[in-house]
Order: sequence, then C-alpha cells, then structure tokens
Amino acid sequence: MKAPHYNRSVLPEAQRDSLLVVLVSPRNPLNIGAAARAMANFGLHCLSVVAPFDPTWREARSAIGAPELLINAVESSTLSEAVAGCTLVVGTGTLTWRKPEQPVIMLPELAPLVSQELARNSRVALVFGSEKHGLTREDLSWCHLLVEIPTDPQQPSMNLGQAVAVCLYELSRSAESAPATPAPSITSAATSGRLDLLAGVIEETMQAVGYSPHAMQPANRHDLRLMLRRLSLTAQDTRRILGIFRRILWKINNLER
Amino acid sequence: MKAPHYNRSVLPEAQRDSLLVVLVSPRNPLNIGAAARAMANFGLHCLSVVAPFDPTWREARSAIGAPELLINAVESSTLSEAVAGCTLVVGTGTLTWRKPEQPVIMLPELAPLVSQELARNSRVALVFGSEKHGLTREDLSWCHLLVEIPTDPQQPSMNLGQAVAVCLYELSRSAESAPATPAPSITSAATSGRLDLLAGVIEETMQAVGYSPHAMQPANRHDLRLMLRRLSLTAQDTRRILGIFRRILWKINNLER
Repeated sequence: MKAPHYNRSVLPEAQRDSLLVVLVSPRNPLNIGAAARAMANFGLHCLSVVAPFDPTWREARSAIGAPELLINAVESSTLSEAVAGCTLVVGTGTLTWRKPEQPVIMLPELAPLVSQELARNSRVALVFGSEKHGLTREDLSWCHLLVEIPTDPQQPSMNLGQAVAVCLYELSRSAESAPATPAPSITSAATSGRLDLLAGVIEETMQAVGYSPHAMQPANRHDLRLMLRRLSLTAQDTRRILGIFRRILWKINNLER
Repeated sequence: MKAPHYNRSVLPEAQRDSLLVVLVSPRNPLNIGAAARAMANFGLHCLSVVAPFDPTWREARSAIGAPELLINAVESSTLSEAVAGCTLVVGTGTLTWRKPEQPVIMLPELAPLVSQELARNSRVALVFGSEKHGLTREDLSWCHLLVEIPTDPQQPSMNLGQAVAVCLYELSRSAESAPATPAPSITSAATSGRLDLLAGVIEETMQAVGYSPHAMQPANRHDLRLMLRRLSLTAQDTRRILGIFRRILWKINNLER
C-alpha cells in the first residue's frame, strides 16, 4: 500500500487567535476539559464559557493538567456578550427536531465559509450548547448559520467533547484549501455586538412609535435579531442604519416634548 | 449566507457490519463508553476489545444507557485474534516519537482505502491503543497501515473517545465519494488470521532449518509479520505459499526420521 505524502494541516497561525469556541452553560467538568483538550490538539487558544454552572466551572479549571487555554478562558454571562466581537457566529447541534430559522449547512461545507471570514481578519465563533438541551432557540438567534454534524438518524446526538473535536478536525482538515494570504477586505462585516446595538436602537424606535402591543415585544426582538443576521450587513451598513434610527428617535423625542 | 444542499453522509448500510473498531487495553470506562457512543453516532455496531482491564470493562458495560453495541462487544485476549477476519488493519495514534515500520497516511486520505476494501466485502479494523501508551510496537506489527490525525505538534495526543469520533467522522464524511456499488472482487486479500497462520508455518520452517540463533526468534517473528502485511498478499498467494512451506516442513521432518 503506497503512502502518499500529506502535510500536517492545521489552521494558519494567524487565524488561530480569531476562531473562538463558545460553550453555553456546560454542566460536566469532564466535557469542558475534553473541549479544551480538543482545542489544544488543533492549535486553538480562545475559549469562552457562557453562564457556566459554578461548581462545574471551578472544578474544570482546577483539574490537574488543565490546559492553559482553559485557565485563560473568558467567562461571560450572556451569549450576546461572548460573541460581540465576531462577524460570523456558527451554532452547532442536532437540528432534526427543530425547525431552524437560519441557513443550515452540513459540517463538511463549513470550512470555506470560516476560512473566508478569518482571512478578512474577522473573528468567528463556533457555539456549542449544553449537554442536555443543546442550544436554545434564544441562543440560536445570535447565530448567522447553523452547522450539523452528519450523524446516524438513529443516534444523532454527539457528546460535547467529541462534537468539539470533530468540528475542529474538520476546520483544520480543510485549512489547506483555504487561501494562504488574506483576501482584500473590500467589505467588512458587522460584528455581533454592533448588530445588537443596532437592534436595541430599532427596538427602542418600535416602542417609541407604538409599533406593537407590549406582549409582542419578545417575539419581535427575536425576529429582528434573526433578520439582522440574515442580511449580512457590513460595518458601514450598520453605521448608516444606526444613524437613521437614532435620528428618528431624536425627532420623536423632540416632537413629544 | 446561502445554504447549499448537502446529503447526510453516513457509511452505506451494507458496509457498517464490516468496519470493526478495536480498542486495545482501554483503562478508562468513560473512554470506552465515549468510543461506543461515537460508533453509534456514525452508525457502526462492531466493537472489539482486546485484553481490557477487568473492572474497567465491567463498569463500562454496565453503565446506565450503555449502547447495545457495547453490550454486544467482542472481547478477545490478543489483537491477533481480534483482527483475524480482517484484510485491512489500520493502526491509529500519534507517531511523532516513533519510527514507523509501515506506511503512514494522514486521516483525510484514509477513506478511499477503507471504502475500496469494504466494497470488496472484506472486513476492515480500525485499531486504537490504550490511553496511556497508545499502540505498542508489537500491536502495530499487525497493522497494514498507520493513520495519523493531523494535530498540533505542541499537543498531538488526542483523547481516546475523541480520536474514535474524529476517525469515524472522517470515514462517514467521505462515504459519499465512495463507489456506490461493490467493486468486482478480482483479487481477494488475505485475512489477518491467514497471514498469522502462514507466519507460523514459515517460522516453524525457519526453526526446523536452524535459520538463526534462538535469541533472534522474537525479532524475526516481528519482521516476518510486518513483511507479510507489506506484501499485500491475496488469499490465493497465501494458500500457495502456505502449501510450499508445509511441503518443505514435511520433507525436513521425513528426512530427519
């Protein structure tokens, strides 16, 4: 059997700092440790943990041999905060029982989209839900895109640490085919944090003009969040729309006085 | 962002029974469970465990929610026995510190080789070593081929359950590009068991003719095992060579009387 030559393919050094792994409400310290180990195996450093169960989180970080990236992990209370600096937020999980509100791709197709974004010096987040429930509908509304690991329909749900390993393997595996030099940054995408800011101003405007009954506000907020992500707004688009809505708000407030 | 259409790719039903996962001397029941779960995720059923640490093995099998494939796993005392029915035995692990005696390929290149073999209705084994030491040099001598997961040189060694998940993902991922119909079985490869039988007869002959000092026998046995696997012998080749050596042995024994 012939052994063809194959380069060890890991993500380019420059892109490793821009790919963030986010664990939402992990419950099992072993799984947190396993996720961190997989990150180290594939050369990543940036781990972010959202609203962890406190004893779990303490136990995972103090485990013997915990990799440095686990000790340096960023803790945040909301997913919105964790992904604020990212222009592409990818939700993971088994979506067979849910009607997704975003585009869904299978894992083998993810790498080119991530590479393209990283090559523009943008930050990308890969978001994993808790062991028990995966990502909630609310969590998913911060995602531009959902990715599914092609598993057997009889047993679709993967263990958290294994899912992280498989996703990072796929991104490393395909790193070779990515462009070696950054693509020219013609349009820079809006970060998740800017979209949240914009959504806040739009919502304030909707309320100021009595757009809908109070009871509808959570549903409207959810739909708005999804829509802003679906539009692929650039940073400039976001700035412009923000300006328009701020002007509207100013006008309304001044008229009412 | 556009969502391209992608089929859920798992191994064809007919091939799932022919792909065997072999764990050599696993120590941690959680890892055995994780390996079994990954197998279920990717639609496999055939697990074989070699010389497990007894309490570990009992604990893993009796775990709540242990998948059926774990309960039905085959236990054997040697790797030779576990892979006897296979025509392609693939060893896994990090080989950076070892000088391999077989061809080494990177994981992304494995799928076509495995598919080709499975399409001939042959059995293929994917062999994983213990958590602590990986596969020994002795274990590896039963392998036709070694496969390496492309990981970061700073932290190359993967967790057992995660390594199994990544390997099975890769094989499922690439199942689509495999030929849909079995290739014509022009030459059928010799199984590992037949090669062991042949090696035994050759070794007996070597001893009968005083080929080398007694102290050299283990080294000769090792080299012979590797060589027989490197030759890609067909079942017919094996039968023929076996016939020759049996005849030689018969002759020697009769001459000596």
